[in-house]
Amino acid sequence: MVGKSQIKLIKSLQQKKYRNQHKLFVVEGEKTVRELLLSKIEVSRIFTSEENFGKKLGHICDLVSISEMKQMSSLKNSSSVLGVFHIPKSEKLEIKDWTVGLDDIRDPGNLGTIIRLCDWFGIKNLVCSITTVDCYNPKVLQATMGSISRVNIVYMNLKLFLEETELPIYGAFMDGKVVYKEKIPEKGVLVMGNEANGVSKEIEALCTNKISIPQFGDSTTESLNVATATSILLNEIRRFSF
Amino acid sequence: MVGKSQIKLIKSLQQKKYRNQHKLFVVEGEKTVRELLLSKIEVSRIFTSEENFGKKLGHICDLVSISEMKQMSSLKNSSSVLGVFHIPKSEKLEIKDWTVGLDDIRDPGNLGTIIRLCDWFGIKNLVCSITTVDCYNPKVLQATMGSISRVNIVYMNLKLFLEETELPIYGAFMDGKVVYKEKIPEKGVLVMGNEANGVSKEIEALCTNKISIPQFGDSTTESLNVATATSILLNEIRRFSF
Repeated sequence: MVGKSQIKLIKSLQQKKYRNQHKLFVVEGEKTVRELLLSKIEVSRIFTSEENFGKKLGHICDLVSISEMKQMSSLKNSSSVLGVFHIPKSEKLEIKDWTVGLDDIRDPGNLGTIIRLCDWFGIKNLVCSITTVDCYNPKVLQATMGSISRVNIVYMNLKLFLEETELPIYGAFMDGKVVYKEKIPEKGVLVMGNEANGVSKEIEALCTNKISIPQFGDSTTESLNVATATSILLNEIRRFSF
Repeated sequence: MVGKSQIKLIKSLQQKKYRNQHKLFVVEGEKTVRELLLSKIEVSRIFTSEENFGKKLGHICDLVSISEMKQMSSLKNSSSVLGVFHIPKSEKLEIKDWTVGLDDIRDPGNLGTIIRLCDWFGIKNLVCSITTVDCYNPKVLQATMGSISRVNIVYMNLKLFLEETELPIYGAFMDGKVVYKEKIPEKGVLVMGNEANGVSKEIEALCTNKISIPQFGDSTTESLNVATATSILLNEIRRFSF
């Protein structure tokens, strides 16, 4: 059982405004809930529509009806488990390695994929411009899976961050130098730009190195999607010192 | 104006069965319609809800109401242009370079991204197992953009294709050899497996080389998404002989 006001609160967490107000976010699906329970992220409540699920999960759950679950869910096909977690405080930025900076990434699927890539490639810090889509957006969480708990995501003025860093700043540009030929340093910041417009002019001015991925097909081809380009560039960075 | 039976036909093309029956498929949005008009793919009809759009497009369009467009569209927010095209015959497989083989890829977004990647990296032929999601699925087309017209996509028995090829077969496996260290030949087949299960046993048995992308983060990390892994491996193949 869950009260109407609880359902209303949980539904409201689909919006950034209410997530920030309550400092809570929602994930759906057994796998992600399990991963987050094992992480440092603090749980608020877990709802399930499946009897005995709490036992299986090793965590106290609130049993709800399927119809209540549907009301709370942001998915077309709701899962049998939904977890409410506390938004963790961003950790202080301690840059010891490569860091990724995102300049106005708008698509939740792209951000989710990039967070998962940071996790795979051992990138500890992800600095997002204030205009980048919120990482606790349900669609981002669907694409990141548990990676959200292993990458320190900081929203801040990207320009200020880049102005203050002493590290080399590598930006991805269509007309940059072919990345294959670059001598890649041990530490740096990789900046990826907006889906439609690329890296903005003011951020471009701060880039110490402009890099690109060569195109092998027909020149009429669309540019690479930003998440795909990030995967290739992070691979290039890691393979260089492998 | 468009008749009810036309609307019904166009809506039916959201399903593979009817696409195959009528040998037609639908794309939505000005950009993709334009690209397909410039390609070898033959157009059947273009519908628009915008007066004078045909002039702008340089092609005769059927003017429809916004409500008719909504009925035909597969999108939540329908576009002002929808094109019906003839499904092209697959060209004969002439393998002169690297080819990608897909073993049971189910997610339309993944297939769409992989087609776009083939286009970017100049991969002419994409061989899909019969169980792979149909490339004229509206969600695939949304992710491929115009690339669908520049990659020859063949659905066939992947096992038979691999049994008959004389090229080396590189499969992506979690426990494969680190791709960075491999001497990559000029020609070959890159096989990517199903999202949940990877490459199937019978296809694995045909692989001459098992390769992997090393993981740099925490070992609890999710595996890479198949489209992301394809982007990294195609980049590895192309950079080797760059």
